[in-house]
Amino acid sequence: MASEWDKIIIGIDPGTNVMGYGLLGIKSKKPQLIAMGVIKLNRMDDHYMRLRHIFDRVSGLIDSYLPDEMAIEAPFFGVNVQSMLKLGRAQGVAMVAALKHDVPIAEYEPRKIKMAITGNGGASKEQVAAMLQRTLKIDKEEMPDFLDATDALAAALCHFYESSKPVTASGGAKSWKAFVNQNPDRVKK
Amino acid sequence: MASEWDKIIIGIDPGTNVMGYGLLGIKSKKPQLIAMGVIKLNRMDDHYMRLRHIFDRVSGLIDSYLPDEMAIEAPFFGVNVQSMLKLGRAQGVAMVAALKHDVPIAEYEPRKIKMAITGNGGASKEQVAAMLQRTLKIDKEEMPDFLDATDALAAALCHFYESSKPVTASGGAKSWKAFVNQNPDRVKK
Repeated sequence: MASEWDKIIIGIDPGTNVMGYGLLGIKSKKPQLIAMGVIKLNRMDDHYMRLRHIFDRVSGLIDSYLPDEMAIEAPFFGVNVQSMLKLGRAQGVAMVAALKHDVPIAEYEPRKIKMAITGNGGASKEQVAAMLQRTLKIDKEEMPDFLDATDALAAALCHFYESSKPVTASGGAKSWKAFVNQNPDRVKK
Repeated sequence: MASEWDKIIIGIDPGTNVMGYGLLGIKSKKPQLIAMGVIKLNRMDDHYMRLRHIFDRVSGLIDSYLPDEMAIEAPFFGVNVQSMLKLGRAQGVAMVAALKHDVPIAEYEPRKIKMAITGNGGASKEQVAAMLQRTLKIDKEEMPDFLDATDALAAALCHFYESSKPVTASGGAKSWKAFVNQNPDRVKK
């Protein structure tokens, strides 16, 4: 499938109850919404069925949209070790669906994503959604019922901003390693 | 492939540095070693490469040995939320390799496994390995250098013991309801 986009980024907001996803297409350095939605897991009682469902759905999204990169919202702290273990399982499953298709992954903390989108690391999910709607010129009717979807799209847009930052002495990618991590496509293999 | 075994159990001891595996064949209600080993991850710097490697290797083991069930050593507590998140990712990836082949999963706490194998929940890894060697009549030369391998085999043997417990009024898991009643801590809320 020949793509009309220069690059496609899939954003994922992993959760054990609802997983959000958002697909961002980049054309002439401008980001545009391709699709977003949620994968509902809370109707499944079985923890393993949820993991399998995450894998199947994320694999399906990757097969359908052929994204070049994955951006994932990854909190560094959790309520407790049990919730982090469960979150880790959901993250790992979503990640490996990308990795087995050779899609590189970038992780961003929720605060970092909010800061990149709204300029305020403490912004609410509603504020993030509203800013996404303006920035990407999304019709009101197209906005999803679930904020997990906009959170995921925000991760993708944050990754787009981060990976298009110029390399300077004071900001952007601070080190060669960071630059390489942020710009895998700019590194000669 | 027609199997010479009535049932094959794959045991997994997931870790982010070394992942152990052990394959146990059951024939006429007797367990026997098929294979065991480790998947070394610590030579890979990249966290994502490790996850992918876990997925590829566990998928490969499942394709080769066609196990009927997976038993996984799953600690419920960790040093901190960060280590639990990483462990969760490794677990999730190993689990989904089984789930996508419709292999059901059983999780056991390390203490429970040690108790099942040695009768002592606080047994050392060496004691677990020595008991496995006797129980399964493994040649000394066949014993692995890494105790992650015997830990994984121990998870498989623990699962064999648990799943062959007689259904009685006083012990064993009689039914799903009884199991839930006996193991309130293992029920995902």
